[in-house]
Amino acid sequence: MPETPVPSGAGRPEQDFTEHRVATSVVYRGRMLEVREDTVRLPDGNSARREYVVHPGAAVILPLFDDWSVLLERQFRYPVGQHFYELPAGKLEAGEPHLETAKRELLEETGYTAARWARLCTLHPCIGYSDEMVEVYIARELSFSKRNLDDEEFLETLIVPLDETLEWIRTGRITEVKTQMALFWADRLRSGWPLDETDAGTP
Amino acid sequence: MPETPVPSGAGRPEQDFTEHRVATSVVYRGRMLEVREDTVRLPDGNSARREYVVHPGAAVILPLFDDWSVLLERQFRYPVGQHFYELPAGKLEAGEPHLETAKRELLEETGYTAARWARLCTLHPCIGYSDEMVEVYIARELSFSKRNLDDEEFLETLIVPLDETLEWIRTGRITEVKTQMALFWADRLRSGWPLDETDAGTP
Repeated sequence: MPETPVPSGAGRPEQDFTEHRVATSVVYRGRMLEVREDTVRLPDGNSARREYVVHPGAAVILPLFDDWSVLLERQFRYPVGQHFYELPAGKLEAGEPHLETAKRELLEETGYTAARWARLCTLHPCIGYSDEMVEVYIARELSFSKRNLDDEEFLETLIVPLDETLEWIRTGRITEVKTQMALFWADRLRSGWPLDETDAGTP
Repeated sequence: MPETPVPSGAGRPEQDFTEHRVATSVVYRGRMLEVREDTVRLPDGNSARREYVVHPGAAVILPLFDDWSVLLERQFRYPVGQHFYELPAGKLEAGEPHLETAKRELLEETGYTAARWARLCTLHPCIGYSDEMVEVYIARELSFSKRNLDDEEFLETLIVPLDETLEWIRTGRITEVKTQMALFWADRLRSGWPLDETDAGTP
């Protein structure tokens, strides 16, 4: 973590609120989800129970064309019961580095490959009840090859100018938060945030 | 949903990928989490299983001072095993409107009340495996009264200039995605996005 001073109470040391694991058990294991119940020791010495999803991690891809338009997907998300506009994304397979997941999912879901890849950032989407960690990549110099969807996967792709995607965020047409975040990040890149092309992300 | 034309394949009708529920069962019910397994009928007529968390919904609060500084929290998040900088937030209690949750959580967690409230947006943080829906509010004209944390809740608050929070996003110090999103939204408000002060959000 970078050493940025905290403006309020400058110099005030940060407190340690760490909760220590006392016991853990798997209470549900489905084909996709695993849920655990842990007993923890709180900072005050008392005990508490924590319930959470164990997730393999994921990669999100921002496929950006030279004219600052973005490749989006539209698909139905059953848990929420509606169609969503979102960036390509997918879960890590066992032992798979995030960047490989990103390349695999971009190709499978959209049929595109990219000649230039760089890591943008790490996201935590659901820290209250999931350990999911997401790495976000930007993919450029895109070329279409051939889409190869998983069984049970139904989606369409569309290309939208970045400025229009930001307007879709403002008007509530894009509500998936990892997608929102990556699009805002792209807008920042356009206005000067640096990009480390050598950063391939968490292995 | 607003009627924005799709630039690629303009006029192309959007496809219907709706998955229809065939059966549902609760496979885990903890004190906090509920998990369901549903059987669904896919668009091609085949069946599939969907596993997901049922969530009551949540509110996130962007407490903004007149000088464009932001009230943040820092707390330990057990599922991920690290401390996070985040905005105040909390789950809806039964029958509670989102705005009431926002007011309650801001007071309980930070000790602040706000004279001006407005809804910013709706977020979906975890559409792959949770039905969670989040309403984001901006809280202004803040005054400190008295903090009243839940048992088992340990956190500290800090006030950080908005521009510095954006730098914390860029450098990976803020990775909680709802917080990132609300901070980017605040930056947009500063540069001209309108704010509907009459919008109290989803009841």
